[in-house]
Amino acid sequence: MLGKLAGWDDTIAAIATPQGVGAIGVIRISGAQAISVVDGMFPSKSLEAQASHTLHVGLLKEDALVLDEVVVALFKAPRSFTGENVVEISCHGSHYIQSQVMESLSRRGVRMAKPGEFTQRAFLNGKMDLTQAEAVADIIASNTEASKKTALQNIRGGFSSVLKELREELIKFSALIELELDFSQEDVEFADRTALFDLLNRVSVQVSKLLQSFRLGNVIKNGVQVAIIGKPNAGKSTLLNALLNEERAIVSDIAGTTRDTIEEVLNINGVLFRLIDTAGIREHTSDIIESIGVERSLAKMREADVVIYLFDITTTTPEELSIEQAKLAAANIQYVMVGNKADQVKERNENAAEHVLYISAKENSGVDELKHRLFNLTVSDEWNSDNTIVTNARHIDALQKVEKSLYDIRNGLQEGLPGDLVAIDIRSCLHYLGEITGEVSNEDQLDFIFSKFCIGK
Amino acid sequence: MLGKLAGWDDTIAAIATPQGVGAIGVIRISGAQAISVVDGMFPSKSLEAQASHTLHVGLLKEDALVLDEVVVALFKAPRSFTGENVVEISCHGSHYIQSQVMESLSRRGVRMAKPGEFTQRAFLNGKMDLTQAEAVADIIASNTEASKKTALQNIRGGFSSVLKELREELIKFSALIELELDFSQEDVEFADRTALFDLLNRVSVQVSKLLQSFRLGNVIKNGVQVAIIGKPNAGKSTLLNALLNEERAIVSDIAGTTRDTIEEVLNINGVLFRLIDTAGIREHTSDIIESIGVERSLAKMREADVVIYLFDITTTTPEELSIEQAKLAAANIQYVMVGNKADQVKERNENAAEHVLYISAKENSGVDELKHRLFNLTVSDEWNSDNTIVTNARHIDALQKVEKSLYDIRNGLQEGLPGDLVAIDIRSCLHYLGEITGEVSNEDQLDFIFSKFCIGK
Repeated sequence: MLGKLAGWDDTIAAIATPQGVGAIGVIRISGAQAISVVDGMFPSKSLEAQASHTLHVGLLKEDALVLDEVVVALFKAPRSFTGENVVEISCHGSHYIQSQVMESLSRRGVRMAKPGEFTQRAFLNGKMDLTQAEAVADIIASNTEASKKTALQNIRGGFSSVLKELREELIKFSALIELELDFSQEDVEFADRTALFDLLNRVSVQVSKLLQSFRLGNVIKNGVQVAIIGKPNAGKSTLLNALLNEERAIVSDIAGTTRDTIEEVLNINGVLFRLIDTAGIREHTSDIIESIGVERSLAKMREADVVIYLFDITTTTPEELSIEQAKLAAANIQYVMVGNKADQVKERNENAAEHVLYISAKENSGVDELKHRLFNLTVSDEWNSDNTIVTNARHIDALQKVEKSLYDIRNGLQEGLPGDLVAIDIRSCLHYLGEITGEVSNEDQLDFIFSKFCIGK
Repeated sequence: MLGKLAGWDDTIAAIATPQGVGAIGVIRISGAQAISVVDGMFPSKSLEAQASHTLHVGLLKEDALVLDEVVVALFKAPRSFTGENVVEISCHGSHYIQSQVMESLSRRGVRMAKPGEFTQRAFLNGKMDLTQAEAVADIIASNTEASKKTALQNIRGGFSSVLKELREELIKFSALIELELDFSQEDVEFADRTALFDLLNRVSVQVSKLLQSFRLGNVIKNGVQVAIIGKPNAGKSTLLNALLNEERAIVSDIAGTTRDTIEEVLNINGVLFRLIDTAGIREHTSDIIESIGVERSLAKMREADVVIYLFDITTTTPEELSIEQAKLAAANIQYVMVGNKADQVKERNENAAEHVLYISAKENSGVDELKHRLFNLTVSDEWNSDNTIVTNARHIDALQKVEKSLYDIRNGLQEGLPGDLVAIDIRSCLHYLGEITGEVSNEDQLDFIFSKFCIGK
């Protein structure tokens, strides 16, 4: 835990609701003076005399000037989001009024909050660790069930509790090894090497599980990139429409997706699938590989997490198909071979390549099965488990450093390295573990993390 | 007061905060079932067992699915905005989460609220009269001190209380006159004609005061239209910059004003002044009158509430000035004659037209005085009084009908019209007075009024 940051014990305020047309605007104030300052603007009763977690309706005034008729919500320290006194003023949804209230608060010595400063205070006051704080921003940005579920899991402790426990154990070993150093002439071993190896293994297992979850975490946060490729007239745009049409109602619910983006986003079981270069597919039905050259088409495909290779079963020979499939396999790309126009063929050519999914984009048959395969290939069963999923690049960065230091510790122990060198590696491992949860942190790092939050959070 | 509207006793919900990036989103629920429905989604405690005006933090769930970690605010009937049970759920500012909560509420039988439906219920439950309800929308839309002050005055009773009292008195007279009709053969007068005339006069005075306030009300709501005209090189764009520059910080606070609009809006003492065709002035410094013809320039000027006629005192003769002033006077337009480039002239030509304001747009001298004159010419002292100001076109329409019926009643009495005809006019007068405050209303009218509100209010 970090010591006091300069100025973090003053009282801060921000408009916590979005700008725009709405009935209500909420101004959030946090700090030792939060209640007394608002009390001075609320003549109808003494707010300081009221209990925590209560609501009060009345006029908000600056001297004789009526600012608005408001509802004031009181949360007394430490029973609040930030751990400090918190007041939330619900005023009418006029930007003018909200600005006026903010200006009036400012004249009373309340400072405008920086982005994420409320959550930063919650962290600094020990109301949550750093991964939980970061999850607050993720929840606000969440736009699918998957991303929300992961963020909520993290806000409620998530993987940091496991890491904290392992770190505590490692701290004990670290102390024992450092103790050995004091007795270095006497060749004693306070730290049980077998138990230490066992602990290192447990940390390793946990860390590598978390590192593995990041690919999935990334998919949950950013979506799965899908490319549809195939020769002209294979039916790419028909397939695209078949994939998107019934989804449109669902995806249109997602905030911030513009009309154009909506058309390129699928929601399969709560995970977003983003169709790469869809506009291109719509405009030129010519084969991407043919038209832009093998080099560039491979680059495009490598951007994708999964490729749909669509072919016309009425015109494609098994030989052609085998060649395409070999190309994809050689490029180490996940793919689904999809034979289109199944409606036009009574009996299937049994010589067709294996694992081909037969569909009729036109008749919308087989499309659900295609979605199912896309989901299984990329997101798989992991997602349905309650396993912790890491979505944050900062955590991954720290976890990779933990992995590296675990390797160094183990190596050092096995090679009989002097205790003081092993101790350094253990300290470095403890540092990176602590960085994830915020038990180790510095001001710059915190400022960077919280600067990505929105104002009012 | 209207009887029950179909379906208005069910429970309704809406997202009450604007869409967009923000820390908090508030969902408002009102109706008999509001608390019990949310209680069923809030496992950590029984909300029904809690006191009114209290706040509760916990998970909001739909069965096993966690929707969000929320703060629930309880307002029990009748101590709420609508007079019904009201719950406000503060969730994280993710549109996805808010939609999910709304869908979950909907599955529990809560209906999506129509625009203004919360305020409509407040009206139907007698928490406010119709003018107060309408002022709620005005407050939300307010973007200056003047418009907010007027709306707040109306929300707290405003002019409707005066009208209600007068209407009560008139109802008594109406009853007496209708009583006379029952005794029509006996030539009795229950209603004291002198007292009735006196009352009619009092109503008239009140109504005409309110009607007169509308011009000011309109100005407060929509701003004062200002046109700057003058010959090329009179310094129009310099004046424009001088007028706007120091205001920019203030007006940029106003929501919804785009960058372009900001440049054309002045805030003088809390009232907006809108500069007509400012872009035109910037682009062509040529004289509007010269370039687009007298006909069109007059039309442009007539759009304005006030015209600034700017001239260069170093090149304009008193004769020219007299002609321009005469044109403006003949067109019945409010104007200020402004002599620019006062910095270039040591002694003023005493033969200049009267009431000329001398400024130096370049040196920014006299600009404040110009603002002062613009304000006095258009908004005047009325605004500083605590007189009620009517800003609503519906009220003006009804007040005009009241005025007409007052005239008919008085005329009828003076010409000795039969009591039954006078009674009809009195009833019509009562009807229109009642329409303003909502004591007389019909479903269509209410639906129309509230449909102009935003969702969630």
